[in-house]
Amino acid sequence: MAAPSRLDAVIALARHRGFVFQAGEIYGGSRSAWDYGPLGVELKENIKRQWWQNFVRGRDDMVGLDSSLILPKQVWEASGHVATFTDPLVECQHCHHRHRQDHLIEAFVAKKGRQPKDGMSEIPCPDCGTKGQWTEPQMFSGLVKTFLGPVESAAGLHYLRPETAQGIFVNFNNVVTASRKKPPFGIGQVGKAFRNEITPGNFIFRTREFEQMEIEYFTAPDDADTWFKHWVDACWDWFVDLGINPDNMRQFDVPEDERAHYSAGTIDFEYRFGFAGSEWGELMGVANRTDFDLRSHSEASGTELSFFNQATGERYIPYVIEPSFGLTRSMMAFLVDAYTEDEAPNTKGGVDKRTVLKLDPRLSPVKAAVLPLSRNEALSPLAREVAANLRAQWNVDFDDAGAIGRRYRRQDEIGTPYCITVDFDSLDDKAVTVRDRDTMAQERVSLDRLYGYLAERLKGA
Amino acid sequence: MAAPSRLDAVIALARHRGFVFQAGEIYGGSRSAWDYGPLGVELKENIKRQWWQNFVRGRDDMVGLDSSLILPKQVWEASGHVATFTDPLVECQHCHHRHRQDHLIEAFVAKKGRQPKDGMSEIPCPDCGTKGQWTEPQMFSGLVKTFLGPVESAAGLHYLRPETAQGIFVNFNNVVTASRKKPPFGIGQVGKAFRNEITPGNFIFRTREFEQMEIEYFTAPDDADTWFKHWVDACWDWFVDLGINPDNMRQFDVPEDERAHYSAGTIDFEYRFGFAGSEWGELMGVANRTDFDLRSHSEASGTELSFFNQATGERYIPYVIEPSFGLTRSMMAFLVDAYTEDEAPNTKGGVDKRTVLKLDPRLSPVKAAVLPLSRNEALSPLAREVAANLRAQWNVDFDDAGAIGRRYRRQDEIGTPYCITVDFDSLDDKAVTVRDRDTMAQERVSLDRLYGYLAERLKGA
Repeated sequence: MAAPSRLDAVIALARHRGFVFQAGEIYGGSRSAWDYGPLGVELKENIKRQWWQNFVRGRDDMVGLDSSLILPKQVWEASGHVATFTDPLVECQHCHHRHRQDHLIEAFVAKKGRQPKDGMSEIPCPDCGTKGQWTEPQMFSGLVKTFLGPVESAAGLHYLRPETAQGIFVNFNNVVTASRKKPPFGIGQVGKAFRNEITPGNFIFRTREFEQMEIEYFTAPDDADTWFKHWVDACWDWFVDLGINPDNMRQFDVPEDERAHYSAGTIDFEYRFGFAGSEWGELMGVANRTDFDLRSHSEASGTELSFFNQATGERYIPYVIEPSFGLTRSMMAFLVDAYTEDEAPNTKGGVDKRTVLKLDPRLSPVKAAVLPLSRNEALSPLAREVAANLRAQWNVDFDDAGAIGRRYRRQDEIGTPYCITVDFDSLDDKAVTVRDRDTMAQERVSLDRLYGYLAERLKGA
Repeated sequence: MAAPSRLDAVIALARHRGFVFQAGEIYGGSRSAWDYGPLGVELKENIKRQWWQNFVRGRDDMVGLDSSLILPKQVWEASGHVATFTDPLVECQHCHHRHRQDHLIEAFVAKKGRQPKDGMSEIPCPDCGTKGQWTEPQMFSGLVKTFLGPVESAAGLHYLRPETAQGIFVNFNNVVTASRKKPPFGIGQVGKAFRNEITPGNFIFRTREFEQMEIEYFTAPDDADTWFKHWVDACWDWFVDLGINPDNMRQFDVPEDERAHYSAGTIDFEYRFGFAGSEWGELMGVANRTDFDLRSHSEASGTELSFFNQATGERYIPYVIEPSFGLTRSMMAFLVDAYTEDEAPNTKGGVDKRTVLKLDPRLSPVKAAVLPLSRNEALSPLAREVAANLRAQWNVDFDDAGAIGRRYRRQDEIGTPYCITVDFDSLDDKAVTVRDRDTMAQERVSLDRLYGYLAERLKGA
């Protein structure tokens, strides 16, 4: 057995502290999805809000949309998903478990440093170990089906969206008319998507139900390359601004034969998640979807999705640059990047190990924790009042259980930037001690200054 | 034909201005769901944020959760949904359209003021008008099915959740352990839910895909009645605080035979939507679910979902008080309630009719619009700079197209609380004119005071 990796430690922390729970755990659990606990839902919400502010509300050339998860099958026929959104599935003839052929080959290459000889004959089943007993690959659709309406029939067949993008394309005319935007402009959307992955895995990295944050940016065809570069940079800067170490992120220019069917150019951002086998994993991608989607939907629906340029008198189908972020993958990257083990002084004059999530304060699920020095009738009312006041603005914890050092450790572990200690002096001097998560420096702050002190340091949170 | 109602006017405005679009419109449209356009997504997001701040982040006794939409079938067997989440379906033998029997009877009673005689024989088909040609009622499941996994079989059968609540119940132990909360405490969740409605309709009121905001509040059984009252009041106050006229809202104590199978008491909030036939519609409900859900899942899963009271040494299954809000219904109520027709002075010294959405500024999709007096090379740079600065904090429009009066009307129609006019004097006096949506009063505000001026008036937004 290999020693537990840093990634294992992050996953253990996330599960133990209630960032992420296994979906349906009391019924044996599902590998299809994960549930986000009290801290996870706050972290995820904070990522969404930062994204929405930075890419939608904060920009003059962007508007938002929230389209439905279930769309009629015509949308997915026109988009090409029904025909091409498939993966090669092989079954082990010994244990009858099914796997994605391309993933098995990738894992082989990562381990051996070379392509397998003679097709699949060298490749063992990850479940039972039997080598080379694979069926011929069959193409398996990644679309998740459902049925709507009062009759169960083909007419009721709908698909859960495998990407949020198509809900944007089919609303192109609606948004242009209502918002009076002209290219270059974009539409942003955050929401769930579903893919019937053959082998979900790697914690929240590959799941059947997941969340995306997507932008479809519409431009004149001649300007597509310029905007492609703009968006690659803007996305990179967003991650770095929110604390991702650029050494842990890299760009991969996807070769033509590996790109999605609609793409004339894709740059994937990969993050160093530290998976066993291959440590890098895809975080997001920026693609040049050309006019493929608007053209396909125009042809299939008979409604022309195009833009009339009044200045030149020309009508054209805009090109689309698509930055597509995995929200749950972004959350995983922020967690892995923030995870730090260092040392903190203990009461005996020595040092103890501590685990600290050095999340950007804008992302931290809890912004401040109010800690009365001890559980005490004199301190408790003041401490609760301090917490209640701050709660009008931020997500604030109150914790009066156990030694103060242990309570600091608990807050460090979940990335709380400020701990506020209420002690017996507080009753007289109307001041509290504010401890900084990263430097562990402590500062006495009067109660009437406390709100402003935090507001300055939690700007944009 | 009846004259267009106030509700018709709200719906027309919502569709025209891009709050709400029909899902899949270019493919003939779906009655199952609606898409939320640039203004709709902001309004919906603002409602969510107010709800989350008021009921989750702002309270010491609440935490949040975000559980998956797709859950294994065992969850829905234990919850009673597979057995009882059904509606009576009848088919017109003339046109073969299908309807909910209970809705047909309700519509009859609303119209005639009496129960129908002889069962269904007096009731005409709403589609073809044929009277009394109905099949016997069949029970039709409202659960939306899907299949996950690499094999299409019964083992892959999952249901899309018809309520967010069950994702909370099955995580009860996880949340208690991670958050160290003790009853009385609650878990809040916002998210999509799905019901295979036989007859969706009334705009965004009854759809197959919709959004809920739900709280499951866990209490000692003896305290359940007290907390039930607390939550009825807290929910009422939330709507009123955000601007709903209490005359348009009423409480309905649901009689035992009309309650859901789990409920020992339900109060529905109804809002005066102004539907044809029956003007009131259900907005939300507060139910006492007793220990039904935690007990059912304990029995079905073999995992005891209960709480051990260390003070008394007793273990008990908490009772659950559930305030369940329809998010999309809340949005519709806020829109209907805000819709106002009044008069505004015109340039000829007379008055014109105006339509204004008197939304609470915390809910308004656009907080401020920057309007250069005319489209002009001298004014444009300053106006764009003003807009860009405000955009760091709020969703801000920039509009330089057309007469200033028309631009005010456009902003009034979407509920923008402040219009900021940049004129030629602004270049010298470094000040702008701020117009209040409701009073139409105008005030000159210097640019260095502008941010603070708006921040004071948009507190909590």
